[in-house]
Amino acid sequence: MAHPGCELCERAESPAWAVVATSPQARVIRVLDAPDFPAFYRVVWREHVAELSELPPADRAACLEAVVVVERALREALAPTKINLAALGNLVPHLHWHVIARFERDSHFPQPIWGSRQRDPDATALAHLRARLPEIDDTIRHRLAPAGYA
Amino acid sequence: MAHPGCELCERAESPAWAVVATSPQARVIRVLDAPDFPAFYRVVWREHVAELSELPPADRAACLEAVVVVERALREALAPTKINLAALGNLVPHLHWHVIARFERDSHFPQPIWGSRQRDPDATALAHLRARLPEIDDTIRHRLAPAGYA
Repeated sequence: MAHPGCELCERAESPAWAVVATSPQARVIRVLDAPDFPAFYRVVWREHVAELSELPPADRAACLEAVVVVERALREALAPTKINLAALGNLVPHLHWHVIARFERDSHFPQPIWGSRQRDPDATALAHLRARLPEIDDTIRHRLAPAGYA
Repeated sequence: MAHPGCELCERAESPAWAVVATSPQARVIRVLDAPDFPAFYRVVWREHVAELSELPPADRAACLEAVVVVERALREALAPTKINLAALGNLVPHLHWHVIARFERDSHFPQPIWGSRQRDPDATALAHLRARLPEIDDTIRHRLAPAGYA
């Protein structure tokens, strides 16, 4: 059920993200408006609920397994220093998970991406990351939607 | 297996947190060194793993169910504007979840607690929150460790 005024209910497409994969329960988008963090995905639950604990246990598990699909694809392709996961939703209270590959020399490490900037990121490292994104997108698509939803 | 040098492996107690509940797989601590956010808990996985996807599926589910126990206790007692969940671990790469009750007039809302401060919080509101913490701790303890582990 779409929630009036909710950006994540009303818009499937946006210049701010690329749609990577869609399953009956969730969609995975890649964030395009955070240039310092190319390997930044979101798992968006289809139904408009604000909090994880509003979902029944099987749906909570399915939601987290989608997060794990993205996390694994990032770890396998990029061997990041750390994966950061977060479900905040203060601005858009529709359940979505940020899944971000972090690296020791990225612009904010070891701070959260919402914290204070630590340094200018290395342009070559960012270009290498960006070059791997199509393969990561494919991995996520194949694992999240094996029946070909996306 | 304790990991040498890992604060979360080596220290059960700290002036920075109160131990709320312990189960065979995880412990819940309440953060004491973030005065603007009294209703700030962490679920710390017992075993030293860095990433959620390193755990087998049953353990991932158990970890998330512990997060949900904390989230529910906070929602029931405080009816917060939003719950914020995050597993970052850039500084301490031992799987732990931040579970934070957020309110529209808290010091950082709608920014993440790691973002830029928006305002001075209301001292009366903080005092009211603090007064509810013993009850929330009890709820978490009873639900996480019904056999009396904590």
